[in-house]
Order: sequence, then C-alpha cells, then structure tokens
Amino acid sequence: MKQNDKLNLTMLCDFYELTMGNGYLECGFKDRVCYFDVFFRRVPDGGGFAVCAGLDQVIDYILDLHFDDADIEYLRSRGLFTEDFLSYLRNFHFSGDIWAIPEGTPIFPGEPIMTVRAPAIDAQLIETYVLLELNHQSLIATKASRICRAAEGRTVLEFGSRRAQGTDAAITGARAAYIGGCAGTACTISDQMYGVKAGGTMAHSWVQMFDSEYEAFKTYCEVYPTNATLLVDTYDTLGSGIPNAIRVFNEVLKPKGITKCGIRLDSGDMAYLTRKARKMLDKAGWQSCTITCSNSLDEHLITDLIRQGAFIDCFGVGERLITARSESVFGGVYKLTAVEDAEGNIIPKIKISENAAKITNPGFKKVYRVFDDSGKCYADYIALCDEEVGKEPLVLFDPVDTWKRRVESDYVLRELLVPIFARGELVYERPTLQQIRAHADAELDTLWDEVKRFDNPHNYYVDLSPKLWDLKQELLLKRGK
Amino acid sequence: MKQNDKLNLTMLCDFYELTMGNGYLECGFKDRVCYFDVFFRRVPDGGGFAVCAGLDQVIDYILDLHFDDADIEYLRSRGLFTEDFLSYLRNFHFSGDIWAIPEGTPIFPGEPIMTVRAPAIDAQLIETYVLLELNHQSLIATKASRICRAAEGRTVLEFGSRRAQGTDAAITGARAAYIGGCAGTACTISDQMYGVKAGGTMAHSWVQMFDSEYEAFKTYCEVYPTNATLLVDTYDTLGSGIPNAIRVFNEVLKPKGITKCGIRLDSGDMAYLTRKARKMLDKAGWQSCTITCSNSLDEHLITDLIRQGAFIDCFGVGERLITARSESVFGGVYKLTAVEDAEGNIIPKIKISENAAKITNPGFKKVYRVFDDSGKCYADYIALCDEEVGKEPLVLFDPVDTWKRRVESDYVLRELLVPIFARGELVYERPTLQQIRAHADAELDTLWDEVKRFDNPHNYYVDLSPKLWDLKQELLLKRGK
Repeated sequence: MKQNDKLNLTMLCDFYELTMGNGYLECGFKDRVCYFDVFFRRVPDGGGFAVCAGLDQVIDYILDLHFDDADIEYLRSRGLFTEDFLSYLRNFHFSGDIWAIPEGTPIFPGEPIMTVRAPAIDAQLIETYVLLELNHQSLIATKASRICRAAEGRTVLEFGSRRAQGTDAAITGARAAYIGGCAGTACTISDQMYGVKAGGTMAHSWVQMFDSEYEAFKTYCEVYPTNATLLVDTYDTLGSGIPNAIRVFNEVLKPKGITKCGIRLDSGDMAYLTRKARKMLDKAGWQSCTITCSNSLDEHLITDLIRQGAFIDCFGVGERLITARSESVFGGVYKLTAVEDAEGNIIPKIKISENAAKITNPGFKKVYRVFDDSGKCYADYIALCDEEVGKEPLVLFDPVDTWKRRVESDYVLRELLVPIFARGELVYERPTLQQIRAHADAELDTLWDEVKRFDNPHNYYVDLSPKLWDLKQELLLKRGK
Repeated sequence: MKQNDKLNLTMLCDFYELTMGNGYLECGFKDRVCYFDVFFRRVPDGGGFAVCAGLDQVIDYILDLHFDDADIEYLRSRGLFTEDFLSYLRNFHFSGDIWAIPEGTPIFPGEPIMTVRAPAIDAQLIETYVLLELNHQSLIATKASRICRAAEGRTVLEFGSRRAQGTDAAITGARAAYIGGCAGTACTISDQMYGVKAGGTMAHSWVQMFDSEYEAFKTYCEVYPTNATLLVDTYDTLGSGIPNAIRVFNEVLKPKGITKCGIRLDSGDMAYLTRKARKMLDKAGWQSCTITCSNSLDEHLITDLIRQGAFIDCFGVGERLITARSESVFGGVYKLTAVEDAEGNIIPKIKISENAAKITNPGFKKVYRVFDDSGKCYADYIALCDEEVGKEPLVLFDPVDTWKRRVESDYVLRELLVPIFARGELVYERPTLQQIRAHADAELDTLWDEVKRFDNPHNYYVDLSPKLWDLKQELLLKRGK
C-alpha cells in the first residue's frame, strides 16, 4: 500500500485494543459504559505548564472512524477475531461522549485534558490515536511556546520539516508550532491545509547555481523585489555575502524605492556576525533590512544571543522545535477511571502501581481553573462530576502534603473540559486555527510569570476536592479491589 | 482539509523550493542539470554507524509527484509565481536520475547516501521530502539497531505509537524499527500496510473492567487460549498479578494441553520483579511462560537489566525508540555538488562554511565499500564518477590528517549507490520489507565489533580518492568562486 494513498487511520490502533474489543464483545461487555481520562504526568523540559493541542485532528479522526472491507479482511486473516466482532466493526461508528480542554489552553500534570465516556469497545479503540495526536501536538506547541517566549516579541518561524519524524510530524507539527506562538512555517502544505503562513526565499544551492554570489543575489532580487531575503553565508558572510547583498539592494531595490528586504545567516557565530552585519547594513543606509538567523536554535540559545546583543529580527527554528529535541516525548496516558453498572451507577476504578506517580485519579470528574480578581489563575481544582463547586469557600490542599492547605472565598471558576461529542454527535463549534492561536495568546496572559520561568518554575497547584481525595484513599486502601 | 484525506505530498516542500523553482524558470535555468548529494554529518547517540532506511517511501513519493488543480490554485493565491511556472508545475513529473544506498545498509558520516541528477527545478523540489523520509526512518532504524543489539538475541517489540510524533511517525516508524531489528510492533496499520507483524493482548483497563484480576485473566485466557500474555502489574505484581496468572494458566490452559503463555510487567523494578516472577512461574511448572517487560526501556537500561540477571524474554520498547528520545534528530542534508554546462561538462560546486563540518564534497561521486578477505569492511572510499577504482592498489588516507595513510592491495570493493531512477523511470527492483530486513541482518555481520560498540566506537574510515581530495582543496582555495 502506498503511504500517501488515503489512509484509514481507524487502523492506527494498538493491536491490543482489538483483542480487548473482541474480548469485551465475547464476554458481554459490549454495552458497558466506561470512562477514560487522558492526562500527563510531567511537563517536558521541566517547564511550568504545557499548551494543549491536537483536538481538531482528534475530531476529524472520530468523525471518520470506520472499518472498510480491506480492514475487515486483514483482521480476519489474523485468525483471532470472531465473525460477530468483525461484523460489529463493519458497522462501527463512535457512539460515546467526549469532553476536552480547548486547544491553546495551558494544562498541568495530573488533570484530565480529555475525558471519554463510551461503550467499552468504542472507548478502548480510540486510545492510541487520541494519545498520539494530543501528545504530539501538545509537545510541539509547548516547545514552541518556550522558544517564542525566549524570542521576546521577535518573529519565530518554524523551519524543521526536513528533520521532522515523518510527514505528519512536519504538517501538524507546523500547526502546533503556530498555536504555540510561531509566526509562520517553511512547510508549504501546512499553509495550504491549515493556513499557517508559509514563506521562504533561497537555499545555498541557489547561490551555488550561479557563477557568482553577486549574480545569484541580483537575479533573485530582480525576480522577487518585494520578497528579497538573501542567504549570505554560502562562501564568506562578512567578506562577500553582506557586501554583495548591499550592492544588490542598492542596484535593484533602491531604484524601485523598495526598502523592505532581509538577509539570512545559517552558520557561524550569530552574536558576532549579526552585530557586524547590522553595522554594515546601517552604514549603507539599509536600516530597514531585517536579519534572520537559523542554525540549531532553541530557547536557551535564543536567550543567550539576545543577552549578548545579537541583532536578530527573526529566528528560523528547525530540528530542535519540530522534534522537541531536548525532550521528544509528551507522556500523555489514557486510563480507565470508572465503569457504569447496569443501573447506570458510576463505579470508580483506580490503577495502582509500584510507581506512585502512575496511580490514577478515580471517577468521572470535572476540572475547574481558579482565578483571582486580577484575572490570573493560581490553581486547578478537580472534583467529582456530581459535586457542587463554587458555592462554598474553596478548600485547596496539596494531595500529597495534605497539611499544606488554604481556604479561598474570593475566586472565579472556569470549567476547563467542554463537551466535544455527545452520543457520537459532534456538539463542539470548532474554532479556526487563528482563533485557537488568539485563545492561546490570551491564556498565556492568565499565568503568573513564576509559572512561565524556563527553569525551576513555580509548581502550579492541581488539587483534588476533599471528596475525590477521600475516594482515592479509600480505593487505594482496598488496593483497587 | 481533513488530515486523513488523500494528501498530495508534493506540497510537502519548503516554500523556498518553489520560489527558487520559479526563479530558475525565470532566469533560464529550467533545463540546467544539477547534482545533489544527501549525506549526514554524525551518527546519533555517538554510535559507530547508522542504518539507512526510507528509500521505498521516497520511491512512492517520486512516482506520485504532481500538482493538482487545488495546489496550483493555492500557489497562484500567493501572488509570487508566474503563470509560466504554474503551467510548468501543472505538467510536472520528475525527470531525473537517482542513485541510493539500499535500505538496511550501514552508512557513515560524510558519504552520499543518495545522489540526485536532475534539472534544477526537479532536483530542488524534492529536497524536503527526501530528507524528511530518509532522516526519519534512518533515525529509527539506527536506534532500533542499538536497542536490539543490547537485547542480545531476545525479542524486541516496538510499542511506541501513542508517543510517536504524528501518525506517519508511528506507521513508518514501526517499519523502520523492523528494519533495525525489532521482531514486531503494536501498531496494527503497520502490519496491514507493510507486514510488520502486529501483536498485543491487554491493557490495564481490561483488568480494571472486571470485578477481580482473577476474573479478568480467566476471561482473557478463555477467549484467547493460544495468545495469553497477561498484564500482571495492575494492582500488585507479586502479591496478586503473578499468583492469579498461574491460577488461570492452571485452570484454563493446562486442561487444554497449552504450554505457550506469557506475563507482561509495565512498572516497578524489572530486575527484582522478573527474578521473583521466574521463580514463581518455574515452581508452578510454567517454565514455558515468557516474561515481557515494557517501561521506558532503551539500549542502556536493557544492557543493565541483562547484566543484573533479569529474566526477560521480550522487551516492549516505546517512546525511547519511536521518538529516538536520547537524540531525536538525524541530520541528513541535501547539498548541491555540481552542475552541467551547456556541453554536458560537470562543473563541481562546493559550499564553504564557517563551520568546517558543513563544507561539502564537490562533484558527481561514487562510493565504494572496502572489504578484507574475511568479508568484513574496514573503509568506505569516495571517488569521482569517472575514476577507475579497483584496478590499482588503493591509497587510503585521512581527509583531515592526510599523513595517516595506508596502501591496500588485497581488497574487495562493492559500489554502494545503486540506480533507482533513470530519466524519471524507476529502474530499481524494490525489495520486500522482509528482504530489506534480511539484508540489514547480513550487513550487520560485515561490521567489526569495534564499530558496533555503543560508546566510543571505532571511527570507521570514510576516505576520499586523491583526485577528489585535490579537487576539494582546489575549490576551497578559490573559496568556491
């Protein structure tokens, strides 16, 4: 099968989801309603928060869920599944409920960022794709947010397609990077599909293709007088690249009255070279010429370059963003938290582990973000779905060191999980990518600076309601049984 | 556009490939034949070699290259391209030559792993996708090779889809992991598409779904008596998980005469727990029960576990393989090495850089692997395409420390780059994935152990012919001009 034939992503599931599904059908659990939470355990790079992303692709996936004849045939060939199950899959469509935190919202470890309520087979089947998509895009949006904050208002462009881990990593990676704060991408198809503005001018090969650098620059400016960013480091940045750029700007752009232009550096010491470049450009009257840098940049290198007085208007960030190189995994998990009995009562479930961090929060829950009167948030509060929250003073306490507690009377709550699917129907008005980005920008302003610090940020509170905490202890003491 | 609609991956290009293409057309370079090399600069994780992969997907991509109406419309809307260029693209198909090193072959820094000879627009357009695919799959195949070598013959399964960087990273990642040595995957669609055997049994949710662990295990064994690998760490591995597994094996499998079965651990100290588990299973007469472990494994942890006497038959490796977490980037680049003049003479080109490692090897080249009479290889030798190699004693010298040299008379050569496309036509007999894997296994045996060491491996020689070395120096002295 060719990779770019239409893929049925329904088959992008872990095989155990199918063996379990077949098993649920065999043992009469087909209609058993269960609850799963997606949550993650720690913020990559030791950061104070993550930026959630990927929901829109999850929605596409849920809407498209189906098994076609070729899929059924493959599954039959495995010799493990009953004809009943195959026939169930042939008519399958997702019939459950999904709540999720909207894309672009800051999220914190331990809280549900998505809750699925669905019959056992449905809920189990979507595990891998849901995790894959939320993990990947949240990883890249979170990394992009760090890099863009380091750039302190300067433009950051996503340049990493060639180092992305596969086609989708490039395409939706550019989307996630935009949510996290990038201004655009080099990836053409991400513009076409999602409207993430794609841009670019020339590679070293353009310069090499001509008999001289001067001729290469001149030709480029003649073809693209209004889009002239010249790559100046093919041979000798200060010795030939910048002088040739200035000469061509003077010869081609100046007579046309064009002042907008730029140079790009892709190697060498960026602090030294851009200070020199700025002087040369200014002296020649090209104060309007922007300087773009690209060369293994990340939030730390950008912070350092700015501190060292580099003159950089625009950062092109490649492999360290698109693969989140410093920490390439967003560890979201998908865990059963409850099942319903025949009467529709919710029976909470827990997963115990030798690793305390792997113990789950049981039950069907809601998540509230708690704001003070300045509009900044200072805690998230997880409660069971039937609790009335917000009428009484809020008791916030650390779920481990429970003696650390405070009572808040003056607070504003916002429920974070919003309905996406109800009984298989999409009930969510999907925002445009531009709206998601605006939401992400606004949400960033609700966080205290302490939470946004790159290293050793303030540990944002994610607290359990007393009722939820008690339930968890009770199940732990019974060891889940 | 929905992500899983049929993608036209032709549009997965960096935007500058289009601005340059339009520029080449405008300035009369449309038919100018150029040569590009794909090569990488260092092996990830400080390893001694990489395993190349991804060629089969590049072939699909090249065969499918085309711009459809929607693509042309999008490009027109950008207001940068001439109608001539858009019309050229509308009728575009790749018309060049491609040579590449077959998948599964060990590759080394600095040597061409693919060479493209094509008209400027064609050659430029494919840069991003070619790099993306070779970089991603070579990264994962290389990491898988490390992890599988650490397992010393034990089974390694790829379990990472949920942490993969997007859908394609999961799907072709499982393919690349198989080339690198994994026995199978959890990713169902990779089996369906590529025949990488997918397997799996149960998650913690299966166990939680039942009133007791015993009931969960019993039901599973009844449904899948011949595929019973039970996950024993949901509540208490030694206290309940393994005793319940043994009880169920005795009750369900034994009466059927089935001895094949397994347990899986996903948390806790694997060395301690598997030693205890092995004893409990053996004592109960289940010597045939295999033990699978999965929990943030990589080559270093696997090496340690084996050294500590852990009893593990099978490793399920997730995020650290599928994202190559310790080093998530394979830095392959695509560089112009020559152009042809009007008479078809090859004019070599060089890219100079402030970073010496970024200087390219000029010209249209061939790569030979040099074997001794034991069948082991000890050097790769890069020569210009018109050099006669193999008739005379071979002069091998270090391209930096040129006084380090030796002359070899007794050697066997193999040319590494084989023809894939000739004038746009596929001329390569594509091996099956199983053949690629067999090739990879055989190729591994041609490497000395010193090259396969995880840390500080022997620095395999990649040498230039005297003629190529002289050409490079000559161009460097002229600074490329």
